[in-house]
Amino acid sequence: MARKAGSGAPASGYLLRPDADDQSLTAPLRALGRNGEKIETRIIAEHPLRVSLNGQKIVTLMTIGDHPDLLAIGHLLNQGLLEANDTITDIAFDSGARQIDIRIPRDTTNESRPDSFGGAAGTAYDDLLEELEQTALDPDATLRTSWLHTLQQVFNATPSLYETAGAIHGCVLCQQDTPLVYVEELGRHNAIDKVAGYMYLNKMRPEDKILYSTGRLTHGMVIKSVKMGIPIMLSRSGFTSWGVEIARQFGLTLVGRVSGKRFIVVSGENRVIDDFDEALAAE
Amino acid sequence: MARKAGSGAPASGYLLRPDADDQSLTAPLRALGRNGEKIETRIIAEHPLRVSLNGQKIVTLMTIGDHPDLLAIGHLLNQGLLEANDTITDIAFDSGARQIDIRIPRDTTNESRPDSFGGAAGTAYDDLLEELEQTALDPDATLRTSWLHTLQQVFNATPSLYETAGAIHGCVLCQQDTPLVYVEELGRHNAIDKVAGYMYLNKMRPEDKILYSTGRLTHGMVIKSVKMGIPIMLSRSGFTSWGVEIARQFGLTLVGRVSGKRFIVVSGENRVIDDFDEALAAE
Repeated sequence: MARKAGSGAPASGYLLRPDADDQSLTAPLRALGRNGEKIETRIIAEHPLRVSLNGQKIVTLMTIGDHPDLLAIGHLLNQGLLEANDTITDIAFDSGARQIDIRIPRDTTNESRPDSFGGAAGTAYDDLLEELEQTALDPDATLRTSWLHTLQQVFNATPSLYETAGAIHGCVLCQQDTPLVYVEELGRHNAIDKVAGYMYLNKMRPEDKILYSTGRLTHGMVIKSVKMGIPIMLSRSGFTSWGVEIARQFGLTLVGRVSGKRFIVVSGENRVIDDFDEALAAE
Repeated sequence: MARKAGSGAPASGYLLRPDADDQSLTAPLRALGRNGEKIETRIIAEHPLRVSLNGQKIVTLMTIGDHPDLLAIGHLLNQGLLEANDTITDIAFDSGARQIDIRIPRDTTNESRPDSFGGAAGTAYDDLLEELEQTALDPDATLRTSWLHTLQQVFNATPSLYETAGAIHGCVLCQQDTPLVYVEELGRHNAIDKVAGYMYLNKMRPEDKILYSTGRLTHGMVIKSVKMGIPIMLSRSGFTSWGVEIARQFGLTLVGRVSGKRFIVVSGENRVIDDFDEALAAE
């Protein structure tokens, strides 16, 4: 059985991928190693980004600094402050002041601010869940287990900031076995928000997509996938109990602990088609 | 050279350590494996905890559910809403409603709420930095490189929820080569907050302590160590540029990418004493 792992250049299906050569996204670091030797390495950049909607301050996000528009728009969408059918009339990014203002024609002054969640969350839970009740994820979407294998091979062959500097999360929007939009961010929430921003600006359909995250699938992450209308979510990492509960409630296919040939399916098993051994045999 | 790794039971220095047998902190999960086989595993619990101060709602934190008092108090301390010299007169935890109210005699109704940071941050940065200007970390504190080795051995020999269910961060308060307070949480911020809560309730001195985290050392994590007065911070993971910048600004000793015998020191090198080879030779 021929091994085809690490077959070289990544597939050319990317619409957006990490710019590992962008020196502004990492910083040089001088450090001492275990024998007192001088080490030169690189670490990931971290900057604040003040996000406002129609001039009203919403939040300060921590970011590596690329794609502030995608991050801001995706955050506002996933917080329910921006709706899918809103038309953005202006995106004003001030790189010096590290702030971005998103303008929409509708009056947003009385918009309720999201609950101030700490830690790894970031959603106005009660309101959101009520709104999500109307969401239906496509029951006909499928995930072939052979795609998991191919996707990982392509991710691994794609240069990333993670490779250069570590300490960063990745999020990839995929279609079948092809990664389309691969973004990186300090937090797993901000990474998924960038994908949401990209999908909004490029009017991408969610129902035939697959969302991959390097981060843990907590309730906040699962809610975002449901809100974005993406029926299948994957992670290299694990789950929390609440994440699994919400995935089952909304019929989201949730696959975690994805590593090499291993994975576990904890929700929405009906969308999973086991063709991995067939695919290997066909090689 | 004799190997002493994995020498059995953890050292008995723990004042607090994970209760890996507490079934309420993890949940059973039925899943499908890669060959469609049924798998029974456990995942980490995730619950909201509404934190209020003198009856005023502050934040909802996501938590595994143990030590709500430590989490709430530590969060309020690290956000600057509770001061080290405040006396807590009541801790009212309602496990059914998942809320906790902390009472102090001083009027807190006009206390400024922290900035609503998203993602991995969680501090009212500008105010905090001003306040931290008055902080001086003990210049005489030391970190022996042999302690790094011993500490990792003890951590690895300590049963934890991470072992059982994964997808969780650990934070350990240490003194020399002995771990004292080992807590786990969904987010690295909430884990460090639990340590802060423990130190407050048990009136522990910070200046001879070492703080270890499994998570990335971002600006928010580094600020917490400075605010807590702990002069040395370690991580299994890496750094961000802003984290390193703040550590250097306040003279915090920052050691990351700690793994086996490897580590790098990026700030406060003066506190580090290289005795690792000596220690090995003495064996």
